Amino acid sequence: MISKSMEELVAGSSVIRALFEEGKQMAAKVGAENVYDYSLGNPSVPAPASVNAAFCQVLAEEDSLFVHGYMNNAGYEDVRETVAASLNRRFGTDFTGDGIVMTVGAAGGLNTVLRTLLDPGDEVICFAPFFGEYTNYIKNFGGVPVVIPADTRTFQLNLDALDKAVNQRTKALIVNNPNNPSGVIYSADTLKKLQAILEAAEKRTGHPIYVISDEPYRELAYDGVQVPFMSLYIKNCIIGYSFSKSLSLPGERIGYLAVPKAVDGYRELMDGLTVAGRILGFVNAPSLQQRMIKRCIDEPTDVEAYDKNRRFLYDSLTEMGFECIRPQGAFYLFMKSPTADEKIFVAEGKKHHILMVPASSFGCPGYVRLAYCVSYDMIQRSMPAFKALAETYFG
Amino acid sequence: MISKSMEELVAGSSVIRALFEEGKQMAAKVGAENVYDYSLGNPSVPAPASVNAAFCQVLAEEDSLFVHGYMNNAGYEDVRETVAASLNRRFGTDFTGDGIVMTVGAAGGLNTVLRTLLDPGDEVICFAPFFGEYTNYIKNFGGVPVVIPADTRTFQLNLDALDKAVNQRTKALIVNNPNNPSGVIYSADTLKKLQAILEAAEKRTGHPIYVISDEPYRELAYDGVQVPFMSLYIKNCIIGYSFSKSLSLPGERIGYLAVPKAVDGYRELMDGLTVAGRILGFVNAPSLQQRMIKRCIDEPTDVEAYDKNRRFLYDSLTEMGFECIRPQGAFYLFMKSPTADEKIFVAEGKKHHILMVPASSFGCPGYVRLAYCVSYDMIQRSMPAFKALAETYFG
Repeated sequence: MISKSMEELVAGSSVIRALFEEGKQMAAKVGAENVYDYSLGNPSVPAPASVNAAFCQVLAEEDSLFVHGYMNNAGYEDVRETVAASLNRRFGTDFTGDGIVMTVGAAGGLNTVLRTLLDPGDEVICFAPFFGEYTNYIKNFGGVPVVIPADTRTFQLNLDALDKAVNQRTKALIVNNPNNPSGVIYSADTLKKLQAILEAAEKRTGHPIYVISDEPYRELAYDGVQVPFMSLYIKNCIIGYSFSKSLSLPGERIGYLAVPKAVDGYRELMDGLTVAGRILGFVNAPSLQQRMIKRCIDEPTDVEAYDKNRRFLYDSLTEMGFECIRPQGAFYLFMKSPTADEKIFVAEGKKHHILMVPASSFGCPGYVRLAYCVSYDMIQRSMPAFKALAETYFG
Repeated sequence: MISKSMEELVAGSSVIRALFEEGKQMAAKVGAENVYDYSLGNPSVPAPASVNAAFCQVLAEEDSLFVHGYMNNAGYEDVRETVAASLNRRFGTDFTGDGIVMTVGAAGGLNTVLRTLLDPGDEVICFAPFFGEYTNYIKNFGGVPVVIPADTRTFQLNLDALDKAVNQRTKALIVNNPNNPSGVIYSADTLKKLQAILEAAEKRTGHPIYVISDEPYRELAYDGVQVPFMSLYIKNCIIGYSFSKSLSLPGERIGYLAVPKAVDGYRELMDGLTVAGRILGFVNAPSLQQRMIKRCIDEPTDVEAYDKNRRFLYDSLTEMGFECIRPQGAFYLFMKSPTADEKIFVAEGKKHHILMVPASSFGCPGYVRLAYCVSYDMIQRSMPAFKALAETYFG
């Protein structure tokens, strides 16, 4: 009754739902305070007070028909100009409001880009480890995901493998910086090398290869590490952003696409993005959220709580003997499974009421992901459970 | 650089943009008050005061992490139950919260349904005249739109033609009640006959044929006419609703899908819709809008202004000699073009600064659409222009 592709996806989704249900059952049995749920990337830091204040100000001060009505499908012009100006101030770029499309979160933005670019059979490259939804987004429009295996030495982009994978059907790459699930930030050096490879590939194939830069974690960086701004390194890039993590608004579905004037086919692309957003049924990013963003665009992100969690969790687990990638960004800790099949390790963790996500779902088997956007208190309480788990393997 | 299908769509869209630009140029030349723009379906009645009050109450009274955070992809459970209970109270139905999916407007909901149902090559039937975006929504996922020509005698569903068009590849029909652009309401009698045809077709083909009922104009009915509630007549129906028109919130992107428990493959369908909404990048309907809807679900729609416009416009134009369908619902007047090619008539209208949409874009050449969700004042001011236009043809 439903489509064949959807049947498979529903079957796949029920694995995640099973994990969620298992957690609920565990909580019912042993008490919610004794379940250590590291599975979800849902911010634990509340939105800044200025966000709610801005919402109320918009409702009180701006005209109702304007606030709740249709606008250009790409978004309110003043909001788009505010976003462009903020980017230009922060990164020395030269975006204009015309190059900004307000979107229903980053996920809405990525789907809009892929609908614009892909003919059935076109290939899109993902670098493992990657956010599992990318392959679904690509397949929505008949695209073919091509997965580049992880460079598990550095967790930077595996550029040698990329060079071999690019061909005539390659339309785009998706790069997630900082990376979910690894917590790694791709360096300026990596991006320079990426640009060199793409330039050669574009000459070889005779068409642009777009880097779709998925940046919902852009503001979440630690230890003073800077996230290199994509358009300063990559010519044909399309930047997807979301305020879900930086302002703790994942339910509000507000983000944007930013396209530098210098990309090949700029005008064609902008027109395509606007039409694609409309015909996919987004029509426009929620209007009230757009008006709020205009007032909150330079609100700083509160990374302190996540940083405290990060340091404590990383230090504690490595001390116990677990091998972890030190996270530089986002709010995920990537840990090597002490068993080759990480699903066995995840099952072992559940015995201690620890919920982790096996990284096979991120194209990187042998690892697990821990989301530390949880309370510091829960992390502390989970330590005896991790110690017991460590003893199973190292003790 | 962009996909072939998108190239065509961008080319098509620029026709509408051209109309918009023409209007702007006209306004610059003759003054905005002398341009009579009947082209856009953007509500002119502001949202009820209770909507803004509810937004502020949600922000003041509910927990910030809850209001702005992720919830079940199908929406907050209490909001879904509120929607189901409201439908049941009003229509004597038996929806449960489980059968409701909160969506990014009706357009988001329709795309979610089509992504769930369609394998490439599957056919979806549209009844002319129809909202032009339907064919784009269907093609997003490789579906094939099949257009049933209008029954220009009654503008009810052309059921004889439908019966011949249904075949093994028919997955669904889209029915828009009240209809944009005709303003007609499909009667209970029409829906009963439709169900009989579908029942026979389902037996013949061996699979369910879903009626996707697009109902953004459900609350906009005049002259005491009742809009028959789809699930009381059609077994395999999926109802798509939006608060865009009923509460004048088109920019806010909030609506829902309602699926009766009795539809074939109910569980499979609900699971598919939830996954489809997620992977298309909607993820969930904007959270703040969902919380607001819980408080405003029974807010009545203010149809008085539209009704006044409708009666004045219909009476005046018919008196001048134009042939119009008397609108029973929505906020559109459908007018027969005095010339066989309605584009010539539309061009003639522009000479008098009247902007109308040629109904070729709704699959119904020979007619034009006038959106009367404008100010009463503008309608009055436009009368001499219409009179002059009438004289060209009848005088």
